[in-house]
Amino acid sequence: MKFLSGKELARELESELQRQAASLASGGHLPTLAVIRVGDDPGSEIYVRTKLKSAQRVGITSLERHLPVTVSQQELEETVEAFNADPAIHGILCQLPLPAKIQLERIVERIDPLKDVDCFHPENVGLLAMGRPRFLPCTPAGILELLRRNEISVAGRHVVVLGRSNIVGRPLSILLSQKGVDATVTLCHSRTARLAEIAREADILVAAIGRPEWVGADMVKEGAVVVDVGVHRVEDSSKERGYRICGDVNQAEVAGRVSAMTPVPGGVGPMTVAMLVSNTLKAAFLQTQPRYE
Amino acid sequence: MKFLSGKELARELESELQRQAASLASGGHLPTLAVIRVGDDPGSEIYVRTKLKSAQRVGITSLERHLPVTVSQQELEETVEAFNADPAIHGILCQLPLPAKIQLERIVERIDPLKDVDCFHPENVGLLAMGRPRFLPCTPAGILELLRRNEISVAGRHVVVLGRSNIVGRPLSILLSQKGVDATVTLCHSRTARLAEIAREADILVAAIGRPEWVGADMVKEGAVVVDVGVHRVEDSSKERGYRICGDVNQAEVAGRVSAMTPVPGGVGPMTVAMLVSNTLKAAFLQTQPRYE
Repeated sequence: MKFLSGKELARELESELQRQAASLASGGHLPTLAVIRVGDDPGSEIYVRTKLKSAQRVGITSLERHLPVTVSQQELEETVEAFNADPAIHGILCQLPLPAKIQLERIVERIDPLKDVDCFHPENVGLLAMGRPRFLPCTPAGILELLRRNEISVAGRHVVVLGRSNIVGRPLSILLSQKGVDATVTLCHSRTARLAEIAREADILVAAIGRPEWVGADMVKEGAVVVDVGVHRVEDSSKERGYRICGDVNQAEVAGRVSAMTPVPGGVGPMTVAMLVSNTLKAAFLQTQPRYE
Repeated sequence: MKFLSGKELARELESELQRQAASLASGGHLPTLAVIRVGDDPGSEIYVRTKLKSAQRVGITSLERHLPVTVSQQELEETVEAFNADPAIHGILCQLPLPAKIQLERIVERIDPLKDVDCFHPENVGLLAMGRPRFLPCTPAGILELLRRNEISVAGRHVVVLGRSNIVGRPLSILLSQKGVDATVTLCHSRTARLAEIAREADILVAAIGRPEWVGADMVKEGAVVVDVGVHRVEDSSKERGYRICGDVNQAEVAGRVSAMTPVPGGVGPMTVAMLVSNTLKAAFLQTQPRYE
């Protein structure tokens, strides 16, 4: 069984992206990412820090706008508008989750589609679904890149995706079945009947359901490749810090059956961050070299 | 075996839509559809005529702009722009196919998304993929409505879609797996390995590959429901006119195995037209009653 580590590959990707960033900078366009963070969610803080560090390693300037949890819808939208209007900013990302009173959809739709490095804007989701993506959604693209760099082919193979979220499952199912990627994709979810049976047919199984260690050995075909998108903190009194990090897959149970599997942490996560950085460079190209698209 | 005829159901739908059209008209807004047809493709002429007749039965005013096959990209875009700017026009549709020299994407993206009754604009495709559709794509919505009105439930069932076109297969796979519709969907295509085997797992099999009578008995599970989206004219010397109309399914071969099947013609086609009319009314509501969305 091979662990598909994303850490080293993400660093590899970063060093490739450095060249793009340098080429932009030498043309007088310093690629720049603006991150909006609201409130003091500790997870958000860590995620944002990780993203900004990766951007920095690649040669992307970044700025973080930290807003209080009491921020109004209007203030948030005005922040986005200001970044839209600023030609020195190429990518805008609003770290989730946002406070419950904020209408996320209206924020996402306010972001200039050319600066939408998360690929959450309807126009960018639509272009992806139509087979001519402007940006690739970060986690799905990170998964694809992780498989590709491990020489795990998806073309013609049966991929079963567990979970239909707008951030992972849905766009991943779309991306994998595009022409040129050519996987045969089954998208499963909480209402799927005979889920274990369907999952067992997968050559490649992607777990993105958001339940700790939910995928057991009964859901995995012998020799399959398993991609684990979940990240959970579960209590564990045997650990000094009182918890451990796990994914959506019961890795201890599954490890003996699969041919390859992503670790948690250090699997899909670092690749997601690298794809965000890649999207920021693409955004900078799109805005500074209009013929690029 | 039950034939799932779309003809009667489309008429049923039309009479329901009449009430919506009347309500709009009584408020001073005559719902209006503009159709652009280019060149003299006989198929296009028939399709447009069918759509305009259905609109008329429902109480929608329509106008057809017939342009010569020599029309330029710019003229076509200007035609769209004029319809966009006209508040008396609520829906715009550009009948396909267009001449090869025309860049279809640029035409589709020029249509005001609020008037995009075919649901081809990236923003509308994106909203659909994100689970909050403004319009439903006509053929996929027609299929769903056909199943629903025949009391064939899709929730929790395994639907296999053959074909990943932007007009049918792709949006249908998205629509069927949405929350509230809840089918488990596998999207197959020309690069799918073991296609017959996967198709045989379907509770509901949708054929939208564009090959005459391609789906045989070996691809269908006993008791499955088969939806045939194809429409082909094939030579047949036994017929007086020298041809017959068939779908993507070899219906003679499959009929003995399935529990229900759509006929060709008279199955999915009429439902597609009814959904276009439905979208035109929705467009008229959106534009005249801004709180509707």
